Amino acid sequence: MALIVQKFGGSSVRDAERIQSVAKLATDRFDLGDRVVVVVSAMGKTTDRLVQMAHEITPDPPAREFDMLLASGEQVSIALLAMAIQARGYQAISFTGPQVGIETDRSHGRARIVHINDTRIRAALGEGKIAIVAGFQGATADQEITTLGRGGSDTTGVALAAALRADRCDIYTDVDGVYTADPRDVPDARRLDAITYEEMLELASRGVKVLHRRSVELAVNYNIPVRVLSSFEPGPGTLVVKGYEGMENAIVSGVTANRTESKITIIGVPDRPGIAAAIFSALGEAEVSVDMIVQNTGLEGRTDISFTVDHEEHARGRAIAERLVGEIGALDVQSQEGIAKLSVVGIGMKSHSGVAAKMFAALAREGISIDMISTSEISISCLIALDSAERALRAVHAEFGLAAPATAAVKTAQGGLS
Amino acid sequence: MALIVQKFGGSSVRDAERIQSVAKLATDRFDLGDRVVVVVSAMGKTTDRLVQMAHEITPDPPAREFDMLLASGEQVSIALLAMAIQARGYQAISFTGPQVGIETDRSHGRARIVHINDTRIRAALGEGKIAIVAGFQGATADQEITTLGRGGSDTTGVALAAALRADRCDIYTDVDGVYTADPRDVPDARRLDAITYEEMLELASRGVKVLHRRSVELAVNYNIPVRVLSSFEPGPGTLVVKGYEGMENAIVSGVTANRTESKITIIGVPDRPGIAAAIFSALGEAEVSVDMIVQNTGLEGRTDISFTVDHEEHARGRAIAERLVGEIGALDVQSQEGIAKLSVVGIGMKSHSGVAAKMFAALAREGISIDMISTSEISISCLIALDSAERALRAVHAEFGLAAPATAAVKTAQGGLS
Repeated sequence: MALIVQKFGGSSVRDAERIQSVAKLATDRFDLGDRVVVVVSAMGKTTDRLVQMAHEITPDPPAREFDMLLASGEQVSIALLAMAIQARGYQAISFTGPQVGIETDRSHGRARIVHINDTRIRAALGEGKIAIVAGFQGATADQEITTLGRGGSDTTGVALAAALRADRCDIYTDVDGVYTADPRDVPDARRLDAITYEEMLELASRGVKVLHRRSVELAVNYNIPVRVLSSFEPGPGTLVVKGYEGMENAIVSGVTANRTESKITIIGVPDRPGIAAAIFSALGEAEVSVDMIVQNTGLEGRTDISFTVDHEEHARGRAIAERLVGEIGALDVQSQEGIAKLSVVGIGMKSHSGVAAKMFAALAREGISIDMISTSEISISCLIALDSAERALRAVHAEFGLAAPATAAVKTAQGGLS
Repeated sequence: MALIVQKFGGSSVRDAERIQSVAKLATDRFDLGDRVVVVVSAMGKTTDRLVQMAHEITPDPPAREFDMLLASGEQVSIALLAMAIQARGYQAISFTGPQVGIETDRSHGRARIVHINDTRIRAALGEGKIAIVAGFQGATADQEITTLGRGGSDTTGVALAAALRADRCDIYTDVDGVYTADPRDVPDARRLDAITYEEMLELASRGVKVLHRRSVELAVNYNIPVRVLSSFEPGPGTLVVKGYEGMENAIVSGVTANRTESKITIIGVPDRPGIAAAIFSALGEAEVSVDMIVQNTGLEGRTDISFTVDHEEHARGRAIAERLVGEIGALDVQSQEGIAKLSVVGIGMKSHSGVAAKMFAALAREGISIDMISTSEISISCLIALDSAERALRAVHAEFGLAAPATAAVKTAQGGLS
């Protein structure tokens, strides 16, 4: 008998029919003899609608009241899901974040979970009930309602799995797993059966929206196996774990392209200690998020420092860079929009020195110039022209032999691991 | 400096514009130097929409989850109202029923308030804030969310006023006060400046929907002055109190007609002790609500017992009466649909023996037959034909001189008591 936390996003519960489907997934799991905790988000576009209502009242809603407003959304979906499960002849009980003891700090709109009191959930499970918990919300020690911000419901799911020492957290989404590349770009991209936490973190950082980075970090810390699978189609999904069989053989797990980056270069930066710190603390204070940072060894006491930002922050980032030129005695600023960042991610990469060469060779054969390169322990990223992103993805995907093996379709048809 | 509880129903907060108006009413009151607690219902048709969503899931939603669902409605309106008040430059804080310590029993869907812990509201008021409280909801001692059922938000308002020893509870509605008769029936009906609790209770029992009976009972018990006034038009409304100036002169305060009654008569009931109890306990067990009961002194050891029920319960009530005929040895059952109950209500009635005669004379002049009569300390009710109800209302209203005096318009224009 396992304890499984199932998490369903807004699109999985967007209407009565979908809620009935989720009820079936929960009771099917219960019928296997497992104890089941279900975490749900607000229905479909509910949160968007509530945000719009707030903005009809005031352009700048106070954070405490905004959380009070948004938290009503999940309260609707947990109640309806509990009704649907009971209507199937099973016992179920719903809990709001405050009720279930998801205690957070006081940072309204982006609260961090500080403690989970699992007493009520354990009692419900002990009585043979399916426990349904509102995602995305919690309460401070003095019962102020808070929300967890972006990726909040995934975070609730993994955090509950950790608190309950669950066997697994199943995250149900619109897609049926994590792929070697985005199938919209690379038609022969293949669903991965398993992936490590580290690879998933790299992919999340590279714009793969399947799992929010924050929930993966929690999963690593508490070593909770997470499975990403589809709410709509049966299938085994992708298991995100510490390690998996055959891991040593997988050099590269996936290829991604982030198409929303802009590059800013500060030219002729004096090569003095503390200069890089000055640049990035100025950007940090202005809350400009920086992605890649590249600095080459300089000549004649000067160097160029390049960094990338989301294209929406390009103008602000460039303005700060221009101000810094005078302050730090640099020479000039150049920036470029319309670029893409191509990354290969794989836990096996570190011990395979040929990965970089193989990636660069594939790009060279396609005649694609590389503008900037940076590496981490398990990834290599290159900046390239935006309009070559799709060709680059396909070439690198093929180069590493990531396309679906003949057996993959059979594997999927065999259904999920249980 | 007074402490005023203001209560606004769903139509008063049905959209952003209305919420802004409510925010103005609250801050205008605050500007007078008073401390203000605002109780709000769910927005407009929200509750209806939530009920419909539940019924799309299951025909018979479990009560606990139904309360969980419905309570989300007020959570939206309190948050938006707090935002609107803050946007006007005032301090405000919203509280759900569970947060504010409205403790109820465990009867989901029709919970009774057992205790109010006023600590958080008093603290907020002490900090110069306007406190906004979700109507209609509370929580059990172990934090299970409950709703109060019909008239719930009025009840929250008056109960909070009692707990806080407020100076008054202002109930804002669609109408600008309590009238001598329904203005749709009697065009010259007049708004009453004041009315006693007892009169208001009689009117509420007679289908006047302005204030729910339950909230008036609470107001009597804790001697809380309640004012009924319009959310949309300024005006003094009607004050509901223990006694008022000029009370001795008011023989009759109002005339009402309830058009949804049916009459059932059990003919030839044996005149033995305990027979009436047997009849009405059978009806009570079947949850058929009985309104008027009339029994005349019988002849030859038998009597007829008549009672009225809501026309929706006519068939069930008649079936029970037919079953009782055999059980108690009565002779027959007769019943009649499509009748109206005409009532005059007035605290001064008891000491004015001519009221009944005056009422009956007015009806006689119109050629309206009286089918049944019953009286209470402060009311007289007659059953009459449904199609004569409007004529009867006008005739009796005129007979007691209830039409607007020439000064009434001036009084209204002078604006509200503060």
